[in-house]
Amino acid sequence: MTPRKQMSLGLSMRYLGYHAAAWRHPQVDPAGASDYDHFLNVARLAEAAKFDMVFLADGIGIRAKDEPEGSLCRSAQTAELEPLTLLSALAPMTKHIGLVATASTTYNEPFHVARKYASLDRISRGRAGWNIVTSWSDAEARNFNRDQHLDYDTRYERAAEFVEVVKGLWDSWDEDAFVRDQDTGIFFDPGKMHVLNHQGRHFKVRGPLSVARSPQARPVLVQAGASEQGLEIAAASADVVYSAPHDIDTAKAYYANLKARLARYGRAPGDLLVMPGFTPFVGRTEQEARDKYDQLNALVDPLLGLSYLYGQMGDLSGYPLDGPVPEPMDAEVKSIARNLLTLARRDNLTIRQLYTQTAAGFGSRIVIGTPKQIADEMEAWVAAEAADGFNICPAALPIGLEDFATLVIPELQRRGVFRSDYAGATLRENLGLRLPGSRYAAA
Amino acid sequence: MTPRKQMSLGLSMRYLGYHAAAWRHPQVDPAGASDYDHFLNVARLAEAAKFDMVFLADGIGIRAKDEPEGSLCRSAQTAELEPLTLLSALAPMTKHIGLVATASTTYNEPFHVARKYASLDRISRGRAGWNIVTSWSDAEARNFNRDQHLDYDTRYERAAEFVEVVKGLWDSWDEDAFVRDQDTGIFFDPGKMHVLNHQGRHFKVRGPLSVARSPQARPVLVQAGASEQGLEIAAASADVVYSAPHDIDTAKAYYANLKARLARYGRAPGDLLVMPGFTPFVGRTEQEARDKYDQLNALVDPLLGLSYLYGQMGDLSGYPLDGPVPEPMDAEVKSIARNLLTLARRDNLTIRQLYTQTAAGFGSRIVIGTPKQIADEMEAWVAAEAADGFNICPAALPIGLEDFATLVIPELQRRGVFRSDYAGATLRENLGLRLPGSRYAAA
Repeated sequence: MTPRKQMSLGLSMRYLGYHAAAWRHPQVDPAGASDYDHFLNVARLAEAAKFDMVFLADGIGIRAKDEPEGSLCRSAQTAELEPLTLLSALAPMTKHIGLVATASTTYNEPFHVARKYASLDRISRGRAGWNIVTSWSDAEARNFNRDQHLDYDTRYERAAEFVEVVKGLWDSWDEDAFVRDQDTGIFFDPGKMHVLNHQGRHFKVRGPLSVARSPQARPVLVQAGASEQGLEIAAASADVVYSAPHDIDTAKAYYANLKARLARYGRAPGDLLVMPGFTPFVGRTEQEARDKYDQLNALVDPLLGLSYLYGQMGDLSGYPLDGPVPEPMDAEVKSIARNLLTLARRDNLTIRQLYTQTAAGFGSRIVIGTPKQIADEMEAWVAAEAADGFNICPAALPIGLEDFATLVIPELQRRGVFRSDYAGATLRENLGLRLPGSRYAAA
Repeated sequence: MTPRKQMSLGLSMRYLGYHAAAWRHPQVDPAGASDYDHFLNVARLAEAAKFDMVFLADGIGIRAKDEPEGSLCRSAQTAELEPLTLLSALAPMTKHIGLVATASTTYNEPFHVARKYASLDRISRGRAGWNIVTSWSDAEARNFNRDQHLDYDTRYERAAEFVEVVKGLWDSWDEDAFVRDQDTGIFFDPGKMHVLNHQGRHFKVRGPLSVARSPQARPVLVQAGASEQGLEIAAASADVVYSAPHDIDTAKAYYANLKARLARYGRAPGDLLVMPGFTPFVGRTEQEARDKYDQLNALVDPLLGLSYLYGQMGDLSGYPLDGPVPEPMDAEVKSIARNLLTLARRDNLTIRQLYTQTAAGFGSRIVIGTPKQIADEMEAWVAAEAADGFNICPAALPIGLEDFATLVIPELQRRGVFRSDYAGATLRENLGLRLPGSRYAAA
């Protein structure tokens, strides 16, 4: 009997979960998103459940009160902790779980990113990951000397170059460069120091990095490429891709499309894991699961709901809540907005219905059911080559994670499709990914 | 009897200590500067000794092998961990000690700095500090899209504006802004959200920050102002100033000069602490102390020694090692270079003697003696208004700290000039500094 295909699992833990009203749930600490102990608890629960990694999405700006009424985000999103700082602080308090922090290629410099993630990789003994984003909101642009966000092409061109520079800096030192011979006084071998001397369109970076080669050589690169340029960056460099398909057919098409691009970059299909996100509502019975979903939805008020649509769809506060969803006004329609629109048209949703559904999972797919139903679906997606694993986005934390960990994970383990203990020492090893070689290695 | 004036103590812990040959000492782990456990051990020793804070100096670039022979730094400086990542990882493993990380105003954006330090302040429950530097080396410039570092005036003008923006962002939210009322659905009070809308010469930053007001309201601001512009930034904003005087008279003049500038910014002399750095060599007898000094100096070889002078004095490898120290060629003479030159002229030093002395403390003052001698001198400096405390820069870690903690600290405690236990909950409280008010507070 062939062993069944193993799945990888990530836990997305930003804010207090993916449901906009999570903070109002009676079992949730509404101040948790600002509190280290909340995240420590979540990370430890995820590690006890043998998740591959915890993940923090990020944006570097929030909407301010000088914007339209419909935009102000009246939820836990307004006060959080910065991802890299937080994950560094979780590193010594965990042992096995991967730590994936988002950093924007539009508002950072590659040397800082290379240095900080290499440091986190050393501190965590090989558990760091970088989720590469280009940022798209004006709220972010306005904190970084701009009025509006950069246009799409420039952002992605910059991102592609940024990633290449970071990868180059991570190769600054061969693994055995540091001799540290106290007797002879030779600290390192200059022949094993590599100076990048990058000169590109967006960056001029000499190097070398002042951090020794880290345990994973290259922290795990995560991406969520949906556009053509995003898919190419993913194919060229990503180890893991978070996708946001709303059904198995879209997921299969995306999976096939992305995996087919790998060969062009000299990579095998197994070098990149596709992990669609979903928000589970789990109950011992289907009714119990649905009740959990309804309980949270009842806590969404219209102002909050509209603010969740604002980022993708603009200000809809002038439209009747129980009327149809209008076309977005912004010429550059984001892929999430496309997903939302498709959903609204398909199910003939009103604005209120759309925001309730969006607020329930921040645009991520919602799966409601018993442990068996959810495990069946996860297995089916993996078998159909729609997914190599999943990025679990609980609606509310820690309760959504507790439900998933106590009810679904044991079911997956029983079926032999998810680990019962960590086998690898690093995140890469747990994900089954190869250790990258250095660009300077002798052929 | 008036209680004797208390002194504050910081511990500088970059690399493996301030002596260039520290890594060659038989009791030092030569790989420690890349190793989290080394720093954890040092931070815990410092906390057990009741230091106010640990401090990480920083530079964002190292010299590469395409530069002159004399420049390549053949020591532990080539492989380290990034300060903010490292101090975040130390936060949950310590309880009382302040965590001061350096970040450059030349190669960062104020929004990132405000957000990361506010997060560290929350994670550490009020123990974060930011050492403000402008960076001055070409090695750094070349990692950030430039060929040479920015000119002095532009750097300091940018720094002054940068600090104002960061302080403004830290006032984004009143302390009681987050209501988080689960029943009414009110997460925050929009009247207590403040939008900075900064538009200056170097930065345009809207805000607000996405981090709630942190326990110290403002992480402790540290500076090392020596120039006119540096002193003004310190007088306007710094809570702590690290200075590098080589004798008590220079220290007194610096102290008086800086404290006199505070009134112009509406600040009292006690609002800023002056903490000169020094590198102690402590022994039970004077001879034992001197032996420790000589033991490390004997481990400095010429190539290493010259690399230590390179940053301030340029490449001296073409001059006879046992000849006099030439004038620096660089038109913009850094203050550290001035100090070095003064020293060389005063004591009629050869290049070899100067680099040995420099390598022994990285330009910081060296104090060799018994616990009584060192405590006497520290007390005398505080009594003479030359210092409010000291930034201890051990020659080698952890041994230099162990010596100081076991021999000198108990002597200071016996004299009643240093705490026997932490009294405050935050770094600010332990330093005896006021909690800053918000710029938006009603008068």
